[in-house]
Amino acid sequence: MTATAFLAGIGTALPGAPVDNAALGRALGVSPEWIDVFVGTRLRHFARDLDTGEVRGTLAGLCARAATQALDRAGLDPADVDFLVLATATPDRLLPTTATEVADRLGLGQLPAYQLQAGCSGALQALELGRALLAGGAGAGLVVGGDVTHRHLDLRPGAARRPAGELVNYVLFGDGAGAAVLTAQPLGDRLAVRGVLHRFTGLGRDPGQIVHWYGAGDAVPDGPAVTEDYKAIEEFVPGMAAEALWETLELAGWQPQDVDYLLPPQLSRHMTHRILDRLALPGAREISCVSDTGNTGNALPFHQFDRLAAAARPGERALALAVESSKWIRTGVCLEKV
Amino acid sequence: MTATAFLAGIGTALPGAPVDNAALGRALGVSPEWIDVFVGTRLRHFARDLDTGEVRGTLAGLCARAATQALDRAGLDPADVDFLVLATATPDRLLPTTATEVADRLGLGQLPAYQLQAGCSGALQALELGRALLAGGAGAGLVVGGDVTHRHLDLRPGAARRPAGELVNYVLFGDGAGAAVLTAQPLGDRLAVRGVLHRFTGLGRDPGQIVHWYGAGDAVPDGPAVTEDYKAIEEFVPGMAAEALWETLELAGWQPQDVDYLLPPQLSRHMTHRILDRLALPGAREISCVSDTGNTGNALPFHQFDRLAAAARPGERALALAVESSKWIRTGVCLEKV
Repeated sequence: MTATAFLAGIGTALPGAPVDNAALGRALGVSPEWIDVFVGTRLRHFARDLDTGEVRGTLAGLCARAATQALDRAGLDPADVDFLVLATATPDRLLPTTATEVADRLGLGQLPAYQLQAGCSGALQALELGRALLAGGAGAGLVVGGDVTHRHLDLRPGAARRPAGELVNYVLFGDGAGAAVLTAQPLGDRLAVRGVLHRFTGLGRDPGQIVHWYGAGDAVPDGPAVTEDYKAIEEFVPGMAAEALWETLELAGWQPQDVDYLLPPQLSRHMTHRILDRLALPGAREISCVSDTGNTGNALPFHQFDRLAAAARPGERALALAVESSKWIRTGVCLEKV
Repeated sequence: MTATAFLAGIGTALPGAPVDNAALGRALGVSPEWIDVFVGTRLRHFARDLDTGEVRGTLAGLCARAATQALDRAGLDPADVDFLVLATATPDRLLPTTATEVADRLGLGQLPAYQLQAGCSGALQALELGRALLAGGAGAGLVVGGDVTHRHLDLRPGAARRPAGELVNYVLFGDGAGAAVLTAQPLGDRLAVRGVLHRFTGLGRDPGQIVHWYGAGDAVPDGPAVTEDYKAIEEFVPGMAAEALWETLELAGWQPQDVDYLLPPQLSRHMTHRILDRLALPGAREISCVSDTGNTGNALPFHQFDRLAAAARPGERALALAVESSKWIRTGVCLEKV
């Protein structure tokens, strides 16, 4: 299979200092041990200051930081960029899109700037779209993903205590952004995209995650804005990851023993362990970041790509998987260092 | 230029009965004449009942209706569809995406379902993405656009009176959806896509339209959720439409005299007149729908395509333009009946 796209440079951005379980437990009124037992994540970053409640930045700002780093690492200038694709579940505003705001901050003009609405599958959706634009004749583009939780999770000091069902969102997610420069020719990190999977699989099934938004014409909400069906997520996600693994390998024409690095879905550290138990890739080294970042949604695969770019030697192969539980989307990508 | 995509069937959906200026004026406490003088639009539809305040449907429901009609007209089944792309500024929820909800309603599974966040340029952005997916090997796909204003505009009876600066949003917009089946081979309506333009042009410029959303962690808003800079819109949009005209013609390799039908931007009836004054296409027949639908955002170009499909004879050519004032995006598409 001929590659039409290469990851030439990766960038990441996390807001503020890392928040450990002791600090987060203090802010939420739960024990650090409960966080550890429940999700197994050690650290995460928030765009809202836990002590003062101050919002320290926008999604556009985080995404622009990550994109700038990706360009630097690829050795390219904004003038070399032919398109921008940004994926998020939590845009700064509905309009203008965060994609156009990031283009503005980077000094990009006269180019298409797409914004994909997505959850955990968004980074790989954006990669697939970027690859299609390169196949259509573009030379290079930016693919960006990010999320900020403070739009939905009230981390302001003194906020009312939450029921246990809501608390999980406060310990599961973190804020962040990531970006990759995609090029039609091998350059920089030289990670060739060998196949991308993107499949909606939730036909006839209830959503596993619902995230609401409110407008000026909506009635005041009387429930939480984010709800999850954790039983369904625990039941379905490991199997969906296994299916995504086989389908993505098939798209690339690879065998399981070809894979040197596995970048698994990262809902939480504990969930990653459960998923890994179902993925039969004994020879592959795991590349995970969720323990240090929390689940950063659309940003997270880029943080894994960042670690992959540092580790992979020419000829080595990697498989990245992401599963979105909202309406059950499975995604995957095969990457080869060339 | 070889076409890789054809509009094979168009579908449209509008909620409820048309609302005339007398009824809208009554609900808002303004005169019908003011509405006519200000925007020149006669009718629009709302997904919220003006008399009872009841919300009568979701964006997903409207989009599924339009998509079903598009499939019927193309003579295709859901099983023939390889992808779905949906564009909106007002999704039902942040997650699951309305795109996946529409896929679910249509019985589509195991396919990519993209959702683009966009304003008035979204329909043509979705068309561009659909064309890229066909170029990548898909045989047919659904491209959908829609918006519902009631998330932001409080049309419930007895809602507080609004200042004049906000009232314009209540008389400018309407709710609706539209869809097209895109095919790699000529089929059904046989409108060949000869060129698609999509350019972010707002580098260093303030947005012309801002639409906020609120989450559970956000402070209660103290201003309107939708703001527009009408002076900037009136100043810039006609020129942007003229630029889009020339650039889109160039992409298709057409001359102005080649164009039989012009589908202009449709912010309002009066604004369309101002735009037409700047577009030098004397031989082209205008296809507009804004007088009967209001500005339906991501749905609107599909309503124009619907009228074009009924009018165009083999060999005739059309140019459609859409301008988004949020962060200044210009788009266009050349279509030829084959």
